Amino acid sequence: MRGFAQRSTVEQALAWIDAVLPPRHDLPREELELHHAAGRVLAKDVVSQANVPQFARSMMDGFAVRSEDTYGATPYNALPLRILGTCLPGQPFPHAVGPGAAVRIMTGAPLPHGADAVLPVEQTEVQGDIVQTMDQISPGKHVGQIGEDLRIGQIVLSAGRTLRPQDLGVLSSIGMLRVAVVRRPVVRILITGNELLPAGTIPTGYRIADANGPMLSALVERDGGEAMRPGIIPDQPDKILSALSEPADVVLVSGGSSVGQEDFVPKLLADQGELAIHGVAMRPSSPAGMGRLDGKLVFLLPGNPVSCLCAYDFFAGPAIRALGGRSREWPYAQRRVRLTRKLVSTVGRVDYSRVKVHADEAEPLAISGASILSSTTDADGFVIVPSDSEGYSAGAEVVVFLYK
Amino acid sequence: MRGFAQRSTVEQALAWIDAVLPPRHDLPREELELHHAAGRVLAKDVVSQANVPQFARSMMDGFAVRSEDTYGATPYNALPLRILGTCLPGQPFPHAVGPGAAVRIMTGAPLPHGADAVLPVEQTEVQGDIVQTMDQISPGKHVGQIGEDLRIGQIVLSAGRTLRPQDLGVLSSIGMLRVAVVRRPVVRILITGNELLPAGTIPTGYRIADANGPMLSALVERDGGEAMRPGIIPDQPDKILSALSEPADVVLVSGGSSVGQEDFVPKLLADQGELAIHGVAMRPSSPAGMGRLDGKLVFLLPGNPVSCLCAYDFFAGPAIRALGGRSREWPYAQRRVRLTRKLVSTVGRVDYSRVKVHADEAEPLAISGASILSSTTDADGFVIVPSDSEGYSAGAEVVVFLYK
Repeated sequence: MRGFAQRSTVEQALAWIDAVLPPRHDLPREELELHHAAGRVLAKDVVSQANVPQFARSMMDGFAVRSEDTYGATPYNALPLRILGTCLPGQPFPHAVGPGAAVRIMTGAPLPHGADAVLPVEQTEVQGDIVQTMDQISPGKHVGQIGEDLRIGQIVLSAGRTLRPQDLGVLSSIGMLRVAVVRRPVVRILITGNELLPAGTIPTGYRIADANGPMLSALVERDGGEAMRPGIIPDQPDKILSALSEPADVVLVSGGSSVGQEDFVPKLLADQGELAIHGVAMRPSSPAGMGRLDGKLVFLLPGNPVSCLCAYDFFAGPAIRALGGRSREWPYAQRRVRLTRKLVSTVGRVDYSRVKVHADEAEPLAISGASILSSTTDADGFVIVPSDSEGYSAGAEVVVFLYK
Repeated sequence: MRGFAQRSTVEQALAWIDAVLPPRHDLPREELELHHAAGRVLAKDVVSQANVPQFARSMMDGFAVRSEDTYGATPYNALPLRILGTCLPGQPFPHAVGPGAAVRIMTGAPLPHGADAVLPVEQTEVQGDIVQTMDQISPGKHVGQIGEDLRIGQIVLSAGRTLRPQDLGVLSSIGMLRVAVVRRPVVRILITGNELLPAGTIPTGYRIADANGPMLSALVERDGGEAMRPGIIPDQPDKILSALSEPADVVLVSGGSSVGQEDFVPKLLADQGELAIHGVAMRPSSPAGMGRLDGKLVFLLPGNPVSCLCAYDFFAGPAIRALGGRSREWPYAQRRVRLTRKLVSTVGRVDYSRVKVHADEAEPLAISGASILSSTTDADGFVIVPSDSEGYSAGAEVVVFLYK
């Protein structure tokens, strides 16, 4: 049992992550059906194979006309046209529109031959098979032209884009049933600690229920990863090594990350792979670490739940998002507010301080212990105090990252 | 075929929705396992059935001591204590700590009887079975007290809260395996239009591929609803009525919402249930409508995809979120920016104008047709021009709702 000899800085830890992440164009991809693709990240540019629309169509309910037949029409000088029939969506009209004629047309229906504009129904009056045009209209008016929305060969959406609901509409309109997206990184969540009972067990005796498993699982899913939860791993080096060796893109190990006698994971990683960072100058989460094993990124997260959340959000979260083609930026909205009272920190370490936000003020929470998970549920967000700061005085303006 | 005789205002439509939504405490609920509950809305307050921790525990790796034995200790006047053994998490130490004694202790381990503080390992030096204490420590220091995180009987999380990752951790730590959440509203998406090919079909002839189905499905899931997609419904009143009659909390009907001869849905709703709003003074989406049938909320969304998106976001989205216990507010981040050029509107209607955002400026998109879905994928967001405004001049500050 000993303390950490030396801690890395947060910047060093982030720089190591940057250096080991693959470039975006190398990320593994998969094909998905469109209706499973919302929120996923496009793996390559989508080029349209179709014109949308692929025929000239009416943008209004009204009458397809030859625009020149309407010249001079006003409400006081209505010009009559003969109605040839009706043009419905999906059904081409079988005749051409000649001089003095009109075809009743619905929004979305193909424009009949001969017609070059649509007169909205509001600007007409119908008497039997005669329509009185009460306004003149210019050529092309209320007609959607071929390729007006999307053209063949056009890049419709670019690689790297997170697919929005309307993007799925666009992809569907050009006839795409499947789309190539970045594969979700598989994230194996290993919970260690002989004192732990499985999540959802009433704590008894000197044992406590696992809080980190359900929390990490939700964080991984939030960040676009696929969470694998093999359950609680006994504090035995062979059991932990075996769990570390299962296939995954990322392994999160909760607990056993420090330098105590039961903290086997750092040594295992150093012996079997690479322990790149162990101990970070931050509070909480100072016993965090990270490294690699068999091509997997491994994050050592302290077992104390606030430390676990903080270390996940500082290090594992950005890596998982990047492996899924997403932004490494904080996934929390930011807001500038003033502190109600002093927030004390220490030069040489980064602080993650939970705050409550009332109107435009942030109140630092008094309870700051790394084991007090309720401090992160009572809080509305957190303030990051950089390592070159001794903290902020009351009334100082700070940026709060808002939990959601 | 006629125009809308009179349109409702956006405010009237929203007021009707407000009036028909059930109060939050009446929303149907269901029990879920914790690991499926992230992002769901709590249906009732959660009261803790356990103290967390339920025993005094060490917050550090170090030595459990009687604090009085350390008084006067400094690096230059180290005081020796005899090490009785080791206390690990989950395992109570079988003996009491008497005067002059100490027990090696790991973070999270129960504090042995007799000890009242933990001396961090960094403030000690070990020589065989003697630990030299190099600092004095006050009673209770580095000890987590019973109930310090959560106490029996305490309200841990309140009804209406959307569950965050750390909330799942807290619920797990008090032994909850299942949690009561608001049931997701079931939203049936009916796509009408004889001109439509199923989503993901290359458009041919005068037919177009359904864009609204995939888009609406993603919007419904975003808003916490459960999307049911029975496919494309033929433009026949009996087929539409039959589809409207299937069980659901909300029905979205895309297409056939206007006053054309193929627009059967408004009349069906008026005849069989309630057509409360038909035609709204807005652009796009003016042919939108809403009503009720057999206790279901029914939204009539125009078939033009931009109108469909806009009508969904103005009316159906807030209703679906409210039925799931969520906020009715816009689900988009807002940003204040200046317009690069004039944005023209008309008094008496609300405009939904797509814009591109560059740095701190918003550029209105020239293409504003309701059928040009790519205007919503090219855009970064939209500006809402209220009905009492003729629009904004170049340089005016506006709020942009950012698509995501």
